[in-house]
Amino acid sequence: MPCMDDDVLRRGKPTCHVEYDEATALLVGDALQSLAFQLLSEHSLSGDAAKQLQMVKLLAVASGSRGMAGGQAIDLASVGKQLSLPELEQMHIHKTGALIRAAILLGAHCGDLEQSQLDKLDRYGKCIGLAFQVVDDVLDSEADTATLGKTAGKDADNDKPTYVTLLGVQSAKKMAAELQQEAMDNLVEFGDRAQRLRELADFIVMRKY
Amino acid sequence: MPCMDDDVLRRGKPTCHVEYDEATALLVGDALQSLAFQLLSEHSLSGDAAKQLQMVKLLAVASGSRGMAGGQAIDLASVGKQLSLPELEQMHIHKTGALIRAAILLGAHCGDLEQSQLDKLDRYGKCIGLAFQVVDDVLDSEADTATLGKTAGKDADNDKPTYVTLLGVQSAKKMAAELQQEAMDNLVEFGDRAQRLRELADFIVMRKY
Repeated sequence: MPCMDDDVLRRGKPTCHVEYDEATALLVGDALQSLAFQLLSEHSLSGDAAKQLQMVKLLAVASGSRGMAGGQAIDLASVGKQLSLPELEQMHIHKTGALIRAAILLGAHCGDLEQSQLDKLDRYGKCIGLAFQVVDDVLDSEADTATLGKTAGKDADNDKPTYVTLLGVQSAKKMAAELQQEAMDNLVEFGDRAQRLRELADFIVMRKY
Repeated sequence: MPCMDDDVLRRGKPTCHVEYDEATALLVGDALQSLAFQLLSEHSLSGDAAKQLQMVKLLAVASGSRGMAGGQAIDLASVGKQLSLPELEQMHIHKTGALIRAAILLGAHCGDLEQSQLDKLDRYGKCIGLAFQVVDDVLDSEADTATLGKTAGKDADNDKPTYVTLLGVQSAKKMAAELQQEAMDNLVEFGDRAQRLRELADFIVMRKY
């Protein structure tokens, strides 16, 4: 089993472990993870240290065994296996969804929002996180490598379960559209303030790479 | 270049990437790093959130590009190269020393100490961190694999610079003893309260594995 994602291209450029080497890419990942916690601990928007600590915890949980690292572990364990739709969803909610959700919530925590508003932004984040992965699977099955900027068809080659293999392309696209709509529904009460978040949801679903 | 440390034994047991696989070992490392930040952010000894944030920053800096990850990068870049003693010291101060120092300082921050006392404990931590590595190099050159619980002679085989190759065994042992003494000197004013730290310094220098 290779150490790392076997993708050799991202956004049309060689991935870090190809451009440099695996050891360097892994170290850079470790260093950047530390840097995120460093930045969260040293910059204060509000002078509210308790809120900053809450943000540190949010990022730590989203990155760890109950977040990204846990999702990646499920992913490793599921190669060549048949997953049900709920199992696939669980994997992606952790693997890619947790950090997307955390990014939304970290921003939300910088504002002065009520819990019900934080909950809405959390649901928005969960929807776009899942939509991101569904669209990724569709792109992997449909686009060519030049457009995608990374190796197309890799998931099928690796015998990995995807939304496309489980649902078919049309249902996967429908699922992405539904998630996009649910994301938008959770932004209604924020009015114009949420315009960038709407653009982000649109980008995630309409992107071609 | 291998992804990971090529040691196959630690404390007489197979290392994680041998017992499981490299991908799993790497993920466990990522998850444990997150867990450290999670624990630091959710448990409060003093109710002093600002101090806890300071501890998060301390650990983040010690783990990142100016700490452990940076030292590991120097290590990777120095295989097969001639390093001077100051260069070797810089590598180890970061690679293994930074986290040992952080462990001492994180404990110190839980108490109510003056800055001059924190500085003394910091110097203590720096000394035992460096001593740890000097002793590691001596053990690697002298012990057999069964005693050491990890593969002996690995550094020389890998053409890695060590304190033993630079100084010789006798001078390396003398250096470790001097670092142990300097560590102890920095504990004087703490009296009996620092007994465990003295035992730790003794263990690091007198250990056989």
